[in-house]
Amino acid sequence: MAGAPPVAIIMGSQSDWATMQHAADTLDALGVPHEAFIVSAHRTPDRLVAFAKGAKQAGYKVVIAGAGGAAHLPGMTASMTPLPVFGVPVESKALSGQDSLLSIVQMPAGIPVGTLAIGRAGAVNAALLATAVLALTDTALAERLDAWRAAQTASVAERPETQIP
Amino acid sequence: MAGAPPVAIIMGSQSDWATMQHAADTLDALGVPHEAFIVSAHRTPDRLVAFAKGAKQAGYKVVIAGAGGAAHLPGMTASMTPLPVFGVPVESKALSGQDSLLSIVQMPAGIPVGTLAIGRAGAVNAALLATAVLALTDTALAERLDAWRAAQTASVAERPETQIP
Amino acid sequence: MAGAPPVAIIMGSQSDWATMQHAADTLDALGVPHEAFIVSAHRTPDRLVAFAKGAKQAGYKVVIAGAGGAAHLPGMTASMTPLPVFGVPVESKALSGQDSLLSIVQMPAGIPVGTLAIGRAGAVNAALLATAVLALTDTALAERLDAWRAAQTASVAERPETQIP
Amino acid sequence: MAGAPPVAIIMGSQSDWATMQHAADTLDALGVPHEAFIVSAHRTPDRLVAFAKGAKQAGYKVVIAGAGGAAHLPGMTASMTPLPVFGVPVESKALSGQDSLLSIVQMPAGIPVGTLAIGRAGAVNAALLATAVLALTDTALAERLDAWRAAQTASVAERPETQIP
Amino acid sequence: MAGAPPVAIIMGSQSDWATMQHAADTLDALGVPHEAFIVSAHRTPDRLVAFAKGAKQAGYKVVIAGAGGAAHLPGMTASMTPLPVFGVPVESKALSGQDSLLSIVQMPAGIPVGTLAIGRAGAVNAALLATAVLALTDTALAERLDAWRAAQTASVAERPETQIP
Amino acid sequence: MAGAPPVAIIMGSQSDWATMQHAADTLDALGVPHEAFIVSAHRTPDRLVAFAKGAKQAGYKVVIAGAGGAAHLPGMTASMTPLPVFGVPVESKALSGQDSLLSIVQMPAGIPVGTLAIGRAGAVNAALLATAVLALTDTALAERLDAWRAAQTASVAERPETQIP
Amino acid sequence: MAGAPPVAIIMGSQSDWATMQHAADTLDALGVPHEAFIVSAHRTPDRLVAFAKGAKQAGYKVVIAGAGGAAHLPGMTASMTPLPVFGVPVESKALSGQDSLLSIVQMPAGIPVGTLAIGRAGAVNAALLATAVLALTDTALAERLDAWRAAQTASVAERPETQIP
Amino acid sequence: MAGAPPVAIIMGSQSDWATMQHAADTLDALGVPHEAFIVSAHRTPDRLVAFAKGAKQAGYKVVIAGAGGAAHLPGMTASMTPLPVFGVPVESKALSGQDSLLSIVQMPAGIPVGTLAIGRAGAVNAALLATAVLALTDTALAERLDAWRAAQTASVAERPETQIP
Repeated sequence: MAGAPPVAIIMGSQSDWATMQHAADTLDALGVPHEAFIVSAHRTPDRLVAFAKGAKQAGYKVVIAGAGGAAHLPGMTASMTPLPVFGVPVESKALSGQDSLLSIVQMPAGIPVGTLAIGRAGAVNAALLATAVLALTDTALAERLDAWRAAQTASVAERPETQIP
Repeated sequence: MAGAPPVAIIMGSQSDWATMQHAADTLDALGVPHEAFIVSAHRTPDRLVAFAKGAKQAGYKVVIAGAGGAAHLPGMTASMTPLPVFGVPVESKALSGQDSLLSIVQMPAGIPVGTLAIGRAGAVNAALLATAVLALTDTALAERLDAWRAAQTASVAERPETQIP
Repeated sequence: MAGAPPVAIIMGSQSDWATMQHAADTLDALGVPHEAFIVSAHRTPDRLVAFAKGAKQAGYKVVIAGAGGAAHLPGMTASMTPLPVFGVPVESKALSGQDSLLSIVQMPAGIPVGTLAIGRAGAVNAALLATAVLALTDTALAERLDAWRAAQTASVAERPETQIP
Repeated sequence: MAGAPPVAIIMGSQSDWATMQHAADTLDALGVPHEAFIVSAHRTPDRLVAFAKGAKQAGYKVVIAGAGGAAHLPGMTASMTPLPVFGVPVESKALSGQDSLLSIVQMPAGIPVGTLAIGRAGAVNAALLATAVLALTDTALAERLDAWRAAQTASVAERPETQIP
Repeated sequence: MAGAPPVAIIMGSQSDWATMQHAADTLDALGVPHEAFIVSAHRTPDRLVAFAKGAKQAGYKVVIAGAGGAAHLPGMTASMTPLPVFGVPVESKALSGQDSLLSIVQMPAGIPVGTLAIGRAGAVNAALLATAVLALTDTALAERLDAWRAAQTASVAERPETQIP
Repeated sequence: MAGAPPVAIIMGSQSDWATMQHAADTLDALGVPHEAFIVSAHRTPDRLVAFAKGAKQAGYKVVIAGAGGAAHLPGMTASMTPLPVFGVPVESKALSGQDSLLSIVQMPAGIPVGTLAIGRAGAVNAALLATAVLALTDTALAERLDAWRAAQTASVAERPETQIP
Repeated sequence: MAGAPPVAIIMGSQSDWATMQHAADTLDALGVPHEAFIVSAHRTPDRLVAFAKGAKQAGYKVVIAGAGGAAHLPGMTASMTPLPVFGVPVESKALSGQDSLLSIVQMPAGIPVGTLAIGRAGAVNAALLATAVLALTDTALAERLDAWRAAQTASVAERPETQIP
Repeated sequence: MAGAPPVAIIMGSQSDWATMQHAADTLDALGVPHEAFIVSAHRTPDRLVAFAKGAKQAGYKVVIAGAGGAAHLPGMTASMTPLPVFGVPVESKALSGQDSLLSIVQMPAGIPVGTLAIGRAGAVNAALLATAVLALTDTALAERLDAWRAAQTASVAERPETQIP
């Protein structure tokens, strides 16, 4: 217990990994330890309860949860842990993630899920938001986050014509 | 155990009762015993787990679950019981139940929720669908359902002008 | 008469079979006998009336109906049979099944259709929901359904990284 | 038989009359005889079949059909009559007629429904479109329609400020 | 003058022909003479005015108008001719024809456009609806339409499994 | 001719004035002369053609056009004048202006309409945008616009609690 | 500097306070000091830049930002501070907050905004999420949050019928 | 200063150039000098402030701004310059530009953005609208714009069948 890394990345199915690995990659780039699990709210509800109820005790600080369609994983996790939960709506086949987004973001008053954009951008940003939270009390991490943001700013070219489209 | 009535009506909050009581009224009209509970997936997750895991043992045959917004109650119940679960999207304030509908109906392959219309019509119809299921093996109930449907058909006037608009 | 298998799968056109065969496959996997028909509400209305009015007499217990676009088949079938009808919105070309979903789920009070998700997931889940209904009075089938669900739970890997994306 | 007026106005329920009476009023203004009936696709399917199959024989030339929610009446009527059918999406409570519109307009190739706007404007316009059809072979009616349109044009004020907002 | 065929098919751009030729093909199959023109409401407004104002005089009976995006062609044509106008929403790139549909169907009270489904199905059905209108006073055409519909009904297979998906 | 004020405000019906008068009021506040007309694309197409074709000759510099539903007025005006046209989607009854917005903004390449927000905000902003255009060559007006914007900035309170909600 | 309370609540206009005061009330209930400001991204861009760039230095730990319509305040704040930013989509008039939601949540990869539900629920939950973040390193606050959540759970009645609807 | 060409084209990222180069190409065809820059509201907020505040001084007359997703660039630019700003919603991956459109067009009263269609058509039209503005005081440009529009009209074929689809 308490030996877990600060960030847990959970997702509803194996297929969500194509999206959620961008969260893992971003945390790697920022030097934030993390673990990733498949926790299906619908197919493995016991695993969900065990994970969510034990997350704080295990030592996690922030949970990133990605799911698609009728996406219940982020909200149900948030109902069973006091840790901050950030949700990533995975792009769904028929409705392009509109169902995922509404299923995650429209939580009733009382149980919050901080929701990011649909798909890859949301996965990257969930990692950045988790980092921002951890950086509140970790000066070295705050400096790495500042450097990452500065590098991002510096990477934006001035003129589009001189780039390969 | 096993002493429960055939239909359980659960809902995510007290405010959903204004919608879900139409399910109760319809079951009353058809002579189908039922019980109603508030089971909030987000505010009372333990109650959800206890209810869903124990529903079959308790003697329920069908579960009607109503919820609004990021409506996780029907799907999470279905993940923990083999009983048929029928979902009623309660009309939400900002999005008029579009969020409720997608959160309930777009379940991934493996865990079904038979979803009805948004609001009062959905609550009435969840009761009728539960009755249709129970009537498969209850001839007397099948006759009451047939009579109810026949009365409904008979109640449709032929000419609109002769009615009070 | 009365010699029909417990589940009828009907669909509005040949092209819906690509979706609806997942219902048939799932019923096969669970050992539930079934038959599949093309019944177009719009192109074969007489066939629709004959099927729906005769479904109970024929011996069916549950009807699964899939259709796309202005999808009238599930609702019209439900208007002419007291059997439970489960609807599958087939993904449409321009609107990705949003039209199919609303045309099926938004039934008025009085005639219910238990609606599943758009597309393949909905077809699989219609089969599972039909099975759940039949399992209420068929202990062997209930056991097969429990086993199917348990196998599904067991098939969920713990770690996404170790799988091929 | 063959004694029917040229236009039949049908609607799914008594409550649709508040919308559909605008079709009747417009036909009255243009001197087009008509009759109005409640024909519920879901609650009175036999009445639907009888009406639709007999409409041409009865002497109707055009059918105006209004319905809301999962609105199947226009399309099912069109499936059983060769007469032109014009559909009016009645404004629904939760989804403001978006469900009605898609359920009526998104008919598959083979069975057309000429769909008008949601609500009152659609009812008025269904009457005008029916009149335009009948006017193709009725010179006097064509003149009345031209006069109606000219009066409409003349009624548009030039300056908004001089009117009561 | 008065030498025009009964149906004019107009469309907003050359690219709409991929959709609208299905209207032409269907009219050919039913033996209904027709002509097709490109009339861009936005790029050739004079051509629009000339066509619409002269359509009745030219001898057309019905106008089929297809357009995409902010689709103004059907409604503007209807504003300048007393002939029945049927609109076909062409599928647009970004919004899949949702913009086309609303731009065509949501006409204000006073000027009707009978709107068909988005895309190919709508084009076929506009032709069928135009035929139904013309068949009101053309017995031979009515018989051809009945035969076309009967053939369509007969072409629907009973069993999906025996067909090539 | 050429005696017209710089801004014409046109709208599809008298009822749009409740929205469009906010454009007039804003132009008044900025000292920009203007005239307002009702020009219905559908009910007064000749007036539309006359206005649009003559607008530049009359002396107008910018046209503000508001309309609701299948809103064709802004785009059709733009098709017949080289002047800049700014469109205001008026809030419609059933669809809250979503139809108005798409009908105005989704113009095909070749004929632009600069579209503002749905409703009152859009009317105010059309006036501000027209003013910004005119201010490009009118220093006094540019100063009045700067002053208006500065006053707007200054009017924003710092603390919400001290205001009447 | 550094004397600011841990949470800043900013909003785009005075009218947003009706929504955002629920964030303030929730923070009060949890004993979390906070300040509220009106910062309009559009009408006071300098204030936005000054606030966002100085927020960390001032001593804030978390920023809650509410805005409606084309809601740019949360994202623009996040672009200029490394602090975690939580966004609340305020319900807009015409589109019920759908525009607010998409404008806030669909941030590109690189700059995250943790987005909550539309309206009052989102404001309450932004406060709870901010509290969860602060509680990671404040044991007393964590206990207050646990107590608040436990009280919320305890407040959910079991039976809906015994309550006033 | 004051040496800038009349039109600035800015965009949120390199990838937007595929869309926005159609604005540049159209301006080239009309002989309107212009410059294009990447200005990311989120990744380069300082560049945004510098550009927007200095745009008028630099000599630009009109700003064309394209962005996708939570598209804040057009509105934020408009908040810091009195110049007319025309916004182009770039098509986004998951939501096809619906998020881009609402984020740009739904500006609050006080700060206008004249918004064009989603994608390529919008980019072309932003260039045409900018040209129309500049042509108000540039007779030679007005003639080139008239010629461009006349050529466009002339390029529309009369008959679709004779063209390659």
